Amino acid sequence: MLKNKEGYIMKLDEIAKLIGGTVKGDGNLDIADIRSIEDAENGHITFMANRKYLDQLQKGRASAVIVEKEMDTDKSQIIVVNPALAFARVLAHFYPETRPEPQVAPTAVLGKNVKLGKDVTVSPLVVVGDNVTIGDETVLHPGVVIGDRCRIGNGGILHPNVTLYQGTVIGNHVILHAGAVVGADGFGYTPDEKGHHFKINQVGRVVIEDHVEVGANTCIDRANIGTTLIREGTKIDNLVQIAHNCKIGEHSILVAQVGLAGSCTLGHHVILAGQAGVSDHVTLGDQVVLTARAGAMRDIESNAVHGGHPSVPLTIWKKYALTLPKLPGLVRKVRDLDTRLNSIEKQQPPG
Amino acid sequence: MLKNKEGYIMKLDEIAKLIGGTVKGDGNLDIADIRSIEDAENGHITFMANRKYLDQLQKGRASAVIVEKEMDTDKSQIIVVNPALAFARVLAHFYPETRPEPQVAPTAVLGKNVKLGKDVTVSPLVVVGDNVTIGDETVLHPGVVIGDRCRIGNGGILHPNVTLYQGTVIGNHVILHAGAVVGADGFGYTPDEKGHHFKINQVGRVVIEDHVEVGANTCIDRANIGTTLIREGTKIDNLVQIAHNCKIGEHSILVAQVGLAGSCTLGHHVILAGQAGVSDHVTLGDQVVLTARAGAMRDIESNAVHGGHPSVPLTIWKKYALTLPKLPGLVRKVRDLDTRLNSIEKQQPPG
Amino acid sequence: MLKNKEGYIMKLDEIAKLIGGTVKGDGNLDIADIRSIEDAENGHITFMANRKYLDQLQKGRASAVIVEKEMDTDKSQIIVVNPALAFARVLAHFYPETRPEPQVAPTAVLGKNVKLGKDVTVSPLVVVGDNVTIGDETVLHPGVVIGDRCRIGNGGILHPNVTLYQGTVIGNHVILHAGAVVGADGFGYTPDEKGHHFKINQVGRVVIEDHVEVGANTCIDRANIGTTLIREGTKIDNLVQIAHNCKIGEHSILVAQVGLAGSCTLGHHVILAGQAGVSDHVTLGDQVVLTARAGAMRDIESNAVHGGHPSVPLTIWKKYALTLPKLPGLVRKVRDLDTRLNSIEKQQPPG
Repeated sequence: MLKNKEGYIMKLDEIAKLIGGTVKGDGNLDIADIRSIEDAENGHITFMANRKYLDQLQKGRASAVIVEKEMDTDKSQIIVVNPALAFARVLAHFYPETRPEPQVAPTAVLGKNVKLGKDVTVSPLVVVGDNVTIGDETVLHPGVVIGDRCRIGNGGILHPNVTLYQGTVIGNHVILHAGAVVGADGFGYTPDEKGHHFKINQVGRVVIEDHVEVGANTCIDRANIGTTLIREGTKIDNLVQIAHNCKIGEHSILVAQVGLAGSCTLGHHVILAGQAGVSDHVTLGDQVVLTARAGAMRDIESNAVHGGHPSVPLTIWKKYALTLPKLPGLVRKVRDLDTRLNSIEKQQPPG
Repeated sequence: MLKNKEGYIMKLDEIAKLIGGTVKGDGNLDIADIRSIEDAENGHITFMANRKYLDQLQKGRASAVIVEKEMDTDKSQIIVVNPALAFARVLAHFYPETRPEPQVAPTAVLGKNVKLGKDVTVSPLVVVGDNVTIGDETVLHPGVVIGDRCRIGNGGILHPNVTLYQGTVIGNHVILHAGAVVGADGFGYTPDEKGHHFKINQVGRVVIEDHVEVGANTCIDRANIGTTLIREGTKIDNLVQIAHNCKIGEHSILVAQVGLAGSCTLGHHVILAGQAGVSDHVTLGDQVVLTARAGAMRDIESNAVHGGHPSVPLTIWKKYALTLPKLPGLVRKVRDLDTRLNSIEKQQPPG
Repeated sequence: MLKNKEGYIMKLDEIAKLIGGTVKGDGNLDIADIRSIEDAENGHITFMANRKYLDQLQKGRASAVIVEKEMDTDKSQIIVVNPALAFARVLAHFYPETRPEPQVAPTAVLGKNVKLGKDVTVSPLVVVGDNVTIGDETVLHPGVVIGDRCRIGNGGILHPNVTLYQGTVIGNHVILHAGAVVGADGFGYTPDEKGHHFKINQVGRVVIEDHVEVGANTCIDRANIGTTLIREGTKIDNLVQIAHNCKIGEHSILVAQVGLAGSCTLGHHVILAGQAGVSDHVTLGDQVVLTARAGAMRDIESNAVHGGHPSVPLTIWKKYALTLPKLPGLVRKVRDLDTRLNSIEKQQPPG
């Protein structure tokens, strides 16, 4: 576990103030930690997203609980509009992200004309190319490699062994997890006279806007010409593939192992569940959802929820997916009907 | 090829002793190498898993063969209960894993309070954080980055560019292949008042027990709260995604590109074939098998073998998968039956 | 964007000569850049792959266009046999790959008996093992780790944090993108007497021939015994898994997130689209195409195009995939036919 602030204690009233909630019970309670319902101990606060966990709460040892509506319990409560969000806020308060001390490690290798903001951390064995700008309080963990002409904003965290190819632009408060590769060549070739694959030089770049998070070993390729764009607030999980010239809208969610082929366009608040895929040049409207492993081969209009491959509206996929196991029986049944019908037809007088 | 021990020769009798087998033929034979049936030369031993390869064996040049039952061949034989296992043991004998010399390279960067066991190898350009413990004979290859407060057991091998985030616990004799990332933030957000994704800090950790092997570029995320757990003896291939709070039982096998969503629980001796997926909070019992690309969306009881997506028992998937190509014909047939039935109904007197 | 050669200008006639085309219009035109139809400005050249973009061309600002057949436009034209290839050639001319200065960085760590060709770049924080040979003009970017006994040809580019395990052989003009792992242990175990997975040592190697490109975070495992082979001119995208003992023919294309199980054999000019998979020991003939997410479980003969999982000829997959959403209706229809038939049968005299 990350370390809680040493011996840190809050009054329940203070927590209520932090999350804009109303205390029902003892506001003077000392709270030393925040835990799940099962793991919470005496002196801890927990949260309950759903009434059905009330029994579990009662049996548990938590001293207080964050809830949406007042519960019939002897535990102290904080009532808030959105318990999940309140929980996340209290968690961040007890377990803040810790950042390493600002430094430029002597074993780091910096190119020419590197501009560092204030309180930047350049860890040991980082390599930064020429003409790079890095904003205030950004952290480069060990093994990070930054290509020439990259620009990184303020408050960023680049975890170990992240690679940025030349010319990548990263906004403020962006987190890139270990092994992520941003700006590698898009996958573009055209056959030459001999049937060999002639490389189409990829002369574009990647732009990642503010508050984006990119998972471990995820790959975002630079554009052939122009920009591969990840807009503000979008969160990308591990091992995701984003091909050249994709544009991903604001506040979208791409779960692990999703793959986007070249030149996809996604609206804002799109959700792609694990292992989903999108064919090249496909546009998904705002707030489109693809369920796990769905494969979108055509444009999908805003607010639609799709499943299956090729993807169809989820209600349709759910129905036919349930029917699939009955398919062999259906084939037999149809054969049987045919036989019975034949037998009747033989007895019929000619039409 | 890895290098065989220089000019290493064994008598057939010695090999038989090593693998607990019985010699049939010339126990005094000199054996210089172990190869597949096709590639074996004079002076080499091979193994035969199945009688159907007898012809190939006879035509080949191997001097000896490991078999389960005595064969009608003039080659010398070693008869064992499990030829595949015996082969692996002889292979490991001729081609043992070589480990680099113990050292702490001068270009490695070690934090405060790092405890190294005896005969540890810290290769060039490794970075180890503060308060880290590394057991005897463990090897950190170049480019490995170990976060603060990690503990690694004895006899481990961390291949180049592996990253462990803070607080990761690794047992004894664990192998992590190049680029693997253990302990990155789980993928957890909750929408705030503006519909932005508020990060749920991931304050848990990853625990990997003894004799686990993790493939190249595989990602195992740390728990939100608590532990993501990989139990003893489990083997994980390349590019696998294991999300936060998963628990994987002993001696399981996860083949390449498998994806587990958050909080999955797997029993012991589970096998997930390539590109299979498991939805969040799903439990797979002991010895469950998912075939390649199966997608488990619900709990599966012990010993079941599933295929398809959503997954169903393999026998069912196999049957309906074979029927799928006949589906358009079935639609036409049903239309035809309808027409014929209509025509009969018209001729029928009213019911 | 990568930087165009400083102030570089070509006459249209010069470009025509470069690509073997015929000028229709003003051959004396100054051309300063090459762009897409939408982005081209005055003084730029573009290309038109298809007549249907003529309108867009007319509205755009490009001064010249590369086409296959003379167009009815007032823009200057170069007529060539293959406009896409001509475009790629002009692009490479305006935006050549830039290579870092040859050097052996003082922070790089080289083993014993390393042979470097001329004009090699060994960037900062590279680690090269013992008995390694690196050809002329090859570039090792920062964080690259080369195992013992590797051989790399001329003109190669190994991007940051690439890992080659021991004994890997790389031909000439090979590009490996960031985080790629070549030569990790194949995934091979056999159960021992206790049901534990006994590791089968992987004593083979990987051989990559000339002009191959390997994507970011892609994994190519070394053979159990023998060679995992990628033949000349094959291009592999990001996050692809190639298991031990696979043989991939010349000039093939493997798109992102493709997975090949062990001992697959692919012919030449094979195309595997994104997220496709191939089962172990399967052979795909020359010029076989698998569409996105197809799963080949059996051998496929040359020139076949397959889709679906298990894969079938694409025409069949397309037909049945369109029928799937109708499946629940079909089940109802068959039930209805059965009812109607029952009612008729009751009225029939016994057969």
